[in-house]
Amino acid sequence: MQISEMGEVKLIEHLTAKLKHSYDSTVHLGIGDDAAAIRISANKYLLIAVDMLVQDRHFVLDKIEPEQLGYKSIAVNLSDIAAMGGTPTHAVISIGWPAKTELRYAEKVYHGIEEIANQFEVNIIGGDTVKSPQLVIDVTVLGEMKEKPVSRSGAKPGDYIAITGRVGASAAGLALLQNEESEKIISPFMRNDLLKAHLCPYPRVREALKLVQAGIPSAMIDISDGVASEINHICAQSKAGALVYAESIPIDLHTRKTADFLREEYLSWALYGGEDYELIFTFSPELEVAAQEALAAMDLDLHVVGEILPPEKGINLSLEGRIVPLGGKGYDHFCSEDDQGNDK
Amino acid sequence: MQISEMGEVKLIEHLTAKLKHSYDSTVHLGIGDDAAAIRISANKYLLIAVDMLVQDRHFVLDKIEPEQLGYKSIAVNLSDIAAMGGTPTHAVISIGWPAKTELRYAEKVYHGIEEIANQFEVNIIGGDTVKSPQLVIDVTVLGEMKEKPVSRSGAKPGDYIAITGRVGASAAGLALLQNEESEKIISPFMRNDLLKAHLCPYPRVREALKLVQAGIPSAMIDISDGVASEINHICAQSKAGALVYAESIPIDLHTRKTADFLREEYLSWALYGGEDYELIFTFSPELEVAAQEALAAMDLDLHVVGEILPPEKGINLSLEGRIVPLGGKGYDHFCSEDDQGNDK
Repeated sequence: MQISEMGEVKLIEHLTAKLKHSYDSTVHLGIGDDAAAIRISANKYLLIAVDMLVQDRHFVLDKIEPEQLGYKSIAVNLSDIAAMGGTPTHAVISIGWPAKTELRYAEKVYHGIEEIANQFEVNIIGGDTVKSPQLVIDVTVLGEMKEKPVSRSGAKPGDYIAITGRVGASAAGLALLQNEESEKIISPFMRNDLLKAHLCPYPRVREALKLVQAGIPSAMIDISDGVASEINHICAQSKAGALVYAESIPIDLHTRKTADFLREEYLSWALYGGEDYELIFTFSPELEVAAQEALAAMDLDLHVVGEILPPEKGINLSLEGRIVPLGGKGYDHFCSEDDQGNDK
Repeated sequence: MQISEMGEVKLIEHLTAKLKHSYDSTVHLGIGDDAAAIRISANKYLLIAVDMLVQDRHFVLDKIEPEQLGYKSIAVNLSDIAAMGGTPTHAVISIGWPAKTELRYAEKVYHGIEEIANQFEVNIIGGDTVKSPQLVIDVTVLGEMKEKPVSRSGAKPGDYIAITGRVGASAAGLALLQNEESEKIISPFMRNDLLKAHLCPYPRVREALKLVQAGIPSAMIDISDGVASEINHICAQSKAGALVYAESIPIDLHTRKTADFLREEYLSWALYGGEDYELIFTFSPELEVAAQEALAAMDLDLHVVGEILPPEKGINLSLEGRIVPLGGKGYDHFCSEDDQGNDK
């Protein structure tokens, strides 16, 4: 059996099952959340998140500027730290460079890294630099938090499900990148906005901190693989069901228009596209006003998209008056043999 | 200019110079040592080390068993933590797998990871799993220490330079792997011993801890790139010179015999081969007995190989009565265009 026949989640579960059995008491959250959490004192946790980006798999050199690549390699990890409610503090960066890489190109990658590191006050304290046939960037980010990290497993029946901002925009940006004709039919303003969503996602670090300080989220996750996949992760780990209202999902006008132009489905982009790096969080309905206020302080609206239900209710989508199962297919980095997939 | 025209050390210095300027007060040691060190309280430091292994660059699939590959990917990082005097505690592992990888192969890699994680009580708490044309393994290990980490920069003129065990054995093992005829002329016992040195290096974590607890090392580094390169690193960062006595370098009989059989130079293996993962440390001569006792408690001999000198004396090797410059050429992972190089 080849590993590509297993899904990514099952493969990881299968390979790492034994490792989890030998955790000592310092491990608060191990393999299986956005970030791992180590308890370093009574009320202090160290978070650690890691993401590997491989050329031609997660990015294509002529579709992303080197500064954007550097920026994004850090951003996706900051988003993981944010999903726990933590503050990123330090990072190490391993890069495998093709030998023929121009020094100027490498410098630009580091400019992008520097920009986001300064923006979020992250110290880049080490790494490894090797030669590799493909460009590979693996970033490990450390974060800290003084409260218990928000895991994926705390959602309770009755909790609302909310999203911090627009979704589907990253997939729309990817679709525009892949469609060279699109420059002629989409306005530059709309195009740039969506490309930016895909190439330079903004990690919701400060917004997550605000929510956690206000005691809002019972569970939280960032959207790397799509709304459907993330809600399935929360439900699986919280042993719960959910009902999501398609009409309530925040899909903005740029994304809708672009889907119309390209004859694509914007709802699919939102549910299965991924790489939006917004946060999905659950919270008790009595905290709705507090949640609104916390997000308003960060200039964001609260988008309630559904409700957590008992597990026997399943995980469903309310779509044009019908209730349909909300499969967690999202984008699976392993099963897809199709390199036009959404993870570029 | 292409990055392969710069050495690895210069490339890293060039690309990361600006990142170091914005370090905050938590960064005790940043880019440029075996591991970075973060001060987390008055007398507690968090260490972080990372190493990326790329297929056909650092290993060849048919020359290393999957269990050995898993073991080694962790071992080289434990050695970096050891070089600071720290205790490894947690690790995250990113692996890029070719889609056609057999599940059985991946399981064996994880068996190797599990073995060394159990042996050194390291919690594997996360990682990333992606698809990649080549097998790529990037491991980040966290460690802790309750004393100030031992950097590369603390060596003082008059200090002795010592090595914890045999060197050159890993290069001998690599030479045996690359020479298929060698099976016929080298005894299986000798061959297996040297292959193990290359494929399953033993990180000197406990030995380093013992040395640090006894207050011995003024500077310390692990041997990844060869004795010459590591001594040059210590001298550069300590702003010192050194004299190393070739005859005192601990090169064991297996390595010497193998070099004779293969008509190679065992001294070159020791000085420039690398991947021995023994420790080189410097210490004040008055601590010689204490150093002997600390190592004897770990069943090791103290091998003094030279002396730290004022910087104007340069970095030299005493060889058969002559004094020759000890260039730090070691193995540079970037400059070599030769894929038969020593980093496999």
